[in-house]
Amino acid sequence: MKNPITLLLLAGAITLPLLSQEKAPNAFSMPPQDKPYLEPAFPRPEQEKAAAEKLAALEKKTGRKPNVLIILVDDMGWGDPGCFGGGPLIGAPTPNIDKLATEGLKLINVYSQPTCTPSRAALMTGRIPTRSGLTRPTLSGEKPKVNPWADEVTTAKLLSEAGYRTCLSGKWHLGEGEGSYPHQCGYDEYYGILSVISDLSQQFDKRLYPDLVLRPERLAALQELSEPAITKGVKGGKLEIAEKLTSSEELGQIDQKFIAYSEEFIRRMAKEEKPFYLYHSLGRLHNDSYPAKGYEGKSPAGFPQRDALVETDDIVGRLIAALKETGQLENTFVFFTSDNGGNEDLMPDSSYQPFRGGKGSTWEGGVRVPGIAYWPGMIAPGRVSEGLFDLCDMFNTPLALAGITEKIPSERYIDGIDQSSFLLADDGKSKRDAVFVYAENDLMAVRWMEYKVHFKVFINQAAHRNLDESIVTNLGMAPWVYNLYMDPKEQSSQGHSRFEWGLPQVLQRAGRHGATFANYPRKDIGLKKPGG
Amino acid sequence: MKNPITLLLLAGAITLPLLSQEKAPNAFSMPPQDKPYLEPAFPRPEQEKAAAEKLAALEKKTGRKPNVLIILVDDMGWGDPGCFGGGPLIGAPTPNIDKLATEGLKLINVYSQPTCTPSRAALMTGRIPTRSGLTRPTLSGEKPKVNPWADEVTTAKLLSEAGYRTCLSGKWHLGEGEGSYPHQCGYDEYYGILSVISDLSQQFDKRLYPDLVLRPERLAALQELSEPAITKGVKGGKLEIAEKLTSSEELGQIDQKFIAYSEEFIRRMAKEEKPFYLYHSLGRLHNDSYPAKGYEGKSPAGFPQRDALVETDDIVGRLIAALKETGQLENTFVFFTSDNGGNEDLMPDSSYQPFRGGKGSTWEGGVRVPGIAYWPGMIAPGRVSEGLFDLCDMFNTPLALAGITEKIPSERYIDGIDQSSFLLADDGKSKRDAVFVYAENDLMAVRWMEYKVHFKVFINQAAHRNLDESIVTNLGMAPWVYNLYMDPKEQSSQGHSRFEWGLPQVLQRAGRHGATFANYPRKDIGLKKPGG
Repeated sequence: MKNPITLLLLAGAITLPLLSQEKAPNAFSMPPQDKPYLEPAFPRPEQEKAAAEKLAALEKKTGRKPNVLIILVDDMGWGDPGCFGGGPLIGAPTPNIDKLATEGLKLINVYSQPTCTPSRAALMTGRIPTRSGLTRPTLSGEKPKVNPWADEVTTAKLLSEAGYRTCLSGKWHLGEGEGSYPHQCGYDEYYGILSVISDLSQQFDKRLYPDLVLRPERLAALQELSEPAITKGVKGGKLEIAEKLTSSEELGQIDQKFIAYSEEFIRRMAKEEKPFYLYHSLGRLHNDSYPAKGYEGKSPAGFPQRDALVETDDIVGRLIAALKETGQLENTFVFFTSDNGGNEDLMPDSSYQPFRGGKGSTWEGGVRVPGIAYWPGMIAPGRVSEGLFDLCDMFNTPLALAGITEKIPSERYIDGIDQSSFLLADDGKSKRDAVFVYAENDLMAVRWMEYKVHFKVFINQAAHRNLDESIVTNLGMAPWVYNLYMDPKEQSSQGHSRFEWGLPQVLQRAGRHGATFANYPRKDIGLKKPGG
Repeated sequence: MKNPITLLLLAGAITLPLLSQEKAPNAFSMPPQDKPYLEPAFPRPEQEKAAAEKLAALEKKTGRKPNVLIILVDDMGWGDPGCFGGGPLIGAPTPNIDKLATEGLKLINVYSQPTCTPSRAALMTGRIPTRSGLTRPTLSGEKPKVNPWADEVTTAKLLSEAGYRTCLSGKWHLGEGEGSYPHQCGYDEYYGILSVISDLSQQFDKRLYPDLVLRPERLAALQELSEPAITKGVKGGKLEIAEKLTSSEELGQIDQKFIAYSEEFIRRMAKEEKPFYLYHSLGRLHNDSYPAKGYEGKSPAGFPQRDALVETDDIVGRLIAALKETGQLENTFVFFTSDNGGNEDLMPDSSYQPFRGGKGSTWEGGVRVPGIAYWPGMIAPGRVSEGLFDLCDMFNTPLALAGITEKIPSERYIDGIDQSSFLLADDGKSKRDAVFVYAENDLMAVRWMEYKVHFKVFINQAAHRNLDESIVTNLGMAPWVYNLYMDPKEQSSQGHSRFEWGLPQVLQRAGRHGATFANYPRKDIGLKKPGG
């Protein structure tokens, strides 16, 4: 038996598109679905022309395709960087990140998935997690029954096949089993960690995890699952251990090692003919924070998490400096973002967002992340945009910059959209009509224009914190509706009855979205569910 | 019988200063109390010298004392301006206010009182409301038993006596009775409203107040108390009605009238020998919002409150433009702020702050307000400071700029501090050690360094909003402690037992503060209390 929302969505899918086809294009028209496997996008021919001309002129000048640098911070809250409201407010100035925003395009409305693995999977594959099966963070040493990478395609894979040198430096967290290593998923080279900092820190830190670290039998059981190490690999080769990690002190140095690797990579690439795609994926700001040498107490706040933010900012500065020093800055598209909102469970080892909720929830605090597109000479400085951007779009966009969108596979559904013209044209607008906000396999909410419509919500169980949240399914026929201009903190639902004009629009879009699963089924990789 | 906190405070007042006197000055030393009637302030001789030299050089150049322009917005939330995180985020860009911040000094830690009248009284008199008696907003037509202005002294009064032309354009809300009009409290001229927008709108708006406006007998009773009008007056003259207000449409125009008055004043002053002190006090953003002509739907958000924010930003731009056009910009100190946090009860007619709580509470959302000091050539552009600033300090600071601090009366306690060197010296630091956060006569909390210690709190009665808050008195021996760097939203008290090192410092300061009431008693003007 279907629940009311499902029925509404089906009704929207069946009847509303018919209605809309009779109308002339207007602000409420849905973007056309040109190809059944590609997310509908607004056609914006003028800005596409402007972007194409810029790209052609640059290629003529440099004689090659542009490089791509994606900087992904782990668990950075929307508000952490100074240019997004944090910085001095939270005792951790971020001048290098702020400079990217001042000299580039600050994106106010970038949406991630609510947790790590799903978000990274979406960014790599252009597909929402319910399609790839990577619906929740993989756990220590966990190997899903089905390897999702047997048939998933990453940006890196397509770029590598098109002549790019592709590199992952830093955190993967998309599989620890044979066949799912980064250098088996499209990266020509990989240096980093397969899991996440807390998977490692729990093996060392007797202050935080005495119940584990001081119990030899438990620790031994964990160590059988995963060995703390920086690993590496090259395409076609085996996974190798680059360096075992044996203490919190060593763990505190990992981002220094990742940046050193990326700097070397950037320098090396300056001498090669190939363009590059570098995915620099920090271990920070995920718990637990151990300051790198020289960073202890360096932030005004003095707490490890804030020291880590200062270190993160320095790392951003070093990446840009390496591009500049090697003469590659003008030919490199840089995109800065986070994989999900800050984790508010961890106070005071916690990131900051001005919104409701945090990592793990589908409130804005969980899924809205800072975003900056930076490319001197190609992206006009000082731009600020509210255009909707989904991290899925970072699958398509680099492919467009490399001129190989025709390589996008057509037998699967791609939720990402090529946003290159949005980012590059001086007055570029988002081509995205809506963002579908998921928790695992549940469509929780839809962001459309400035509205967010929640069909299911995480509610706050604790009086003074956003902790201990759990899903409340099915708000029934009365979804909660927030106008994010008027209520960015999602404090007071305006009620569906004050959204009579908009709700059909949202249901229509959700309906079309839901209909994609008929021809492109979800993938189940056998991740165990709590209680299931 | 004293409660535990009182005993702690008394103990702090008596014993801790003795201990501290034995120590050499260090970061924890309390600033000296040079005069018993003046709030202790850190001596900062170097920056004072730097500021004095700047002022002397300017006076040499212009041959006169500097002008002062205070721009006070009503109920603007800390986060409303773009430069404080709002702007595009909330559908209301504020380019003019942002420009003041970019080209001036952005103050992150400015504290107001939690409501309107108390905050304005503090700003005008340099005294916390429990000293002046103006502890809560005065109500429609209310005349306190005792006129607080019989013996209160305003910055305007002292500047007027020292040869300034002093002007209030806009909202007063500090008394509607004979003897308490602005032009009887130090202003040479006044044009504005005596109360507050909602006191006026409730007389017209049958959509919002049908229970009043559609009940003739109730409306007549209200109209006996106060007549909706723009009033005016000059020193020594009577209060006159400048213009009766008879509709919401007319009410929507009042800020346009205030800015027109201020523009005329600024132009007029350019031709006079006297320097001026202009307190431009907007009616906006207080509820209820009626768009001025040309502003309806002008903001991207389109709601009246956001249109009002866009209008407010335009007004700021017009004030600066008037100074520039008349050649007075380089000789005018501009200070932009709000009287308290945004009122979150009023969703969607509500301002924005990223903090907990709103107007009326002593959470950061209620008492932390945006602050910008702007003075081309005198204040270095692009400065951002976390230095503590209390709106009380805006009593002393203009007096210092005019060189008349010796006129500060000595028979009463002044809680304000001269912060001119903080604002003017290129690397100026706040001279303030702490901010004492009050609700009416209750010391609720102390802000010291990045910590906020709550002795009493407003707690949130509603699940999803910060509404319906009520005082919870006396947290006993376990005050709630927040590190605002790590927890700017005051979500999770770190607990007093993780603040063993700091709590004595805070109690010492609160104790010295409490001891001032022995020699300088509170004033009771007979404002009725709820239930009393």
